[in-house]
Amino acid sequence: MQNFTYNIPTIINFGIDQLSHLADLRESGDRVLYVYGGGSIKANGLYDRSMKILRDAGLEVYELAGIEPNPRIQTIREGVNICRSKMVDMVLAVGGGSVIDSAKVIAAGACYDGDPWDLVIKPELISECLPIYTVLTIAATGSEMDTFAVISDLTKNEKWGTWSDFFAPRMSILDPTLTYSVPRRQTSAGVADIMSHTLENYFNNEKGAYLQARLAEGILKTLINYGPIALEQPDNYEARANLMWCSSLAINGLLSCGASVGWGVHPMEHELSAFYDITHGEGLAILTPHFLEFALNKDNVWKYVEYAKNVFGITEGTEMEIARDAIRATKDFFKRMRLPSTLSELGIDDEYFDIMAEKAAAGCFGTFVELTKDDIISIFRASL
Amino acid sequence: MQNFTYNIPTIINFGIDQLSHLADLRESGDRVLYVYGGGSIKANGLYDRSMKILRDAGLEVYELAGIEPNPRIQTIREGVNICRSKMVDMVLAVGGGSVIDSAKVIAAGACYDGDPWDLVIKPELISECLPIYTVLTIAATGSEMDTFAVISDLTKNEKWGTWSDFFAPRMSILDPTLTYSVPRRQTSAGVADIMSHTLENYFNNEKGAYLQARLAEGILKTLINYGPIALEQPDNYEARANLMWCSSLAINGLLSCGASVGWGVHPMEHELSAFYDITHGEGLAILTPHFLEFALNKDNVWKYVEYAKNVFGITEGTEMEIARDAIRATKDFFKRMRLPSTLSELGIDDEYFDIMAEKAAAGCFGTFVELTKDDIISIFRASL
Repeated sequence: MQNFTYNIPTIINFGIDQLSHLADLRESGDRVLYVYGGGSIKANGLYDRSMKILRDAGLEVYELAGIEPNPRIQTIREGVNICRSKMVDMVLAVGGGSVIDSAKVIAAGACYDGDPWDLVIKPELISECLPIYTVLTIAATGSEMDTFAVISDLTKNEKWGTWSDFFAPRMSILDPTLTYSVPRRQTSAGVADIMSHTLENYFNNEKGAYLQARLAEGILKTLINYGPIALEQPDNYEARANLMWCSSLAINGLLSCGASVGWGVHPMEHELSAFYDITHGEGLAILTPHFLEFALNKDNVWKYVEYAKNVFGITEGTEMEIARDAIRATKDFFKRMRLPSTLSELGIDDEYFDIMAEKAAAGCFGTFVELTKDDIISIFRASL
Repeated sequence: MQNFTYNIPTIINFGIDQLSHLADLRESGDRVLYVYGGGSIKANGLYDRSMKILRDAGLEVYELAGIEPNPRIQTIREGVNICRSKMVDMVLAVGGGSVIDSAKVIAAGACYDGDPWDLVIKPELISECLPIYTVLTIAATGSEMDTFAVISDLTKNEKWGTWSDFFAPRMSILDPTLTYSVPRRQTSAGVADIMSHTLENYFNNEKGAYLQARLAEGILKTLINYGPIALEQPDNYEARANLMWCSSLAINGLLSCGASVGWGVHPMEHELSAFYDITHGEGLAILTPHFLEFALNKDNVWKYVEYAKNVFGITEGTEMEIARDAIRATKDFFKRMRLPSTLSELGIDDEYFDIMAEKAAAGCFGTFVELTKDDIISIFRASL
């Protein structure tokens, strides 16, 4: 096990009827920027209910609506301008990962003199941040409890992850019933995203981070158990609650501490989203099995065998056979979740493989196996 | 899954050479009360090394030595007096659970006008606390990352747990190499303590806290894997590191959130320790299998079956047979850890069963199965 610092300061208020905790925002001041996406929170009443609590608590609320699924730097700039002109004290995200990611970069941008895009491409410039609060409406990115944000500039086909300890939300409200209305396709993509976060952390070369591996397996088993239930019964509380808590724990630092963890699938997928604006989780579901196949070798087969045995109960065959069965089981799970399994299904061909692979390779550090531009092209090809 | 608030603010600096983080104490002021136990930290050099870092950082250090294994309120009172007379800003515990528990009640006592024993028997009186820091020297109680403290008044055969959100240490240093010198018997007792914390959280009636149950199983598997290795190879870093991180995660709130979790074995053991001053973990190892046997019934057998399957890989037989095999496997593990299995081995007979059971019953709320005084007497008898 490698040295680590564990520091997860986000307070989670989890369950039914937790929205009243929005009144706690008073601890950070009087003026809040309320960031959200499309009209779904207006349609389901969440907008009205949350606004009422904020106003009853005496908060002055400014709004930034229209955050996109792959959030754009242009919208972030708008948010930063509101923060500056209205002297906002804190940022509240009500929505999914895109909304929360945007809130993070807006909160940092409000404390930075230059263009917020600088903070996306140079995380080290982030040295201050307004307090961030969230109300989560979809189980997926884990942004409600992590220190990452992913922002795009689609005018340049750029999509980058940035991070800062300052990005950890001060408090997040996780009410599983708010995810009852998440459509089937987004539910599936969310599960694929959580699964990918867990696997990106899990597939590392550190045998000594044994405990962390066992915890990751616990999350994987939970996803496999409840993912299909949430698809069939969108208002199954138990399923939605377990998926929601998986979303936070998969990426908040619990699984990655104690090992050198470099993510490989995410940088590849970010290129697909940057070029084609596809749903992140669907891209991950397509790429993950091909990454696992590409990475498998006799030195790391032990990891696949652990995965096979502890997650899927697969124990029969040679180590290599067991490993391949585990990859097949992963693919099957994504199929059960009705996720796409080829890039072609999303209308992606090999036109930009070269440039996408070059950019993705630049974002891969210390991954489970080394990934060159050519390796990434071959994973893209296998995914066609 | 039930509603919960998750709030674990403790920063963990984990690994080799983390002691330099003691300089971070400067963020809480200038004067620190340094609390420790016997001479072991002097013998192994930890005392000198830590003192040097504190003094080089410009901190003024006061000392309270001689914290006992079942820490006494009399010693706590001494600590509180030092805090008051020296205007101490923070409390640093260097040691195991007893030392850390003492530091917590001293830190709260320093902010309370009355006798600190009040804070042990009435946790609701704790409304303020000096910042608490720890350097952990044994993997066991989890006090380095939790909000509990257990304090005794042996003049009255009293041992009580108290708790407060204010008790969460601000920062804990977890260096597994500091546990290399922990003797075999204390290593075993520590593992039994961690195992008991995990099982007390795990054996609850909330089927919907599925994820938390899977995480608990990850901790249990880690303990079972590395406990015996640490006994045979006291300086096996991987074993010591995994056990140490298990110690923190077993009781920091990760496993208990989302379920009604009432602890049954701990209140029983606290009476044994209060009357006989035995090692806490040894008492737990003796009582745990008998508690599990007592509690088993047809309504909760599903929990035992999960435990059997996911922790021990036991799947053959009727549900009741599988459950009993899991209890047997638990007992066998404690035996492998060379822990005592009967109260007689520790010189305990039935003399005080009546009074101990009466007091223990008063400490059992919302346990896996209801525990009356008579139930506890029968568990004590079975443990003879």
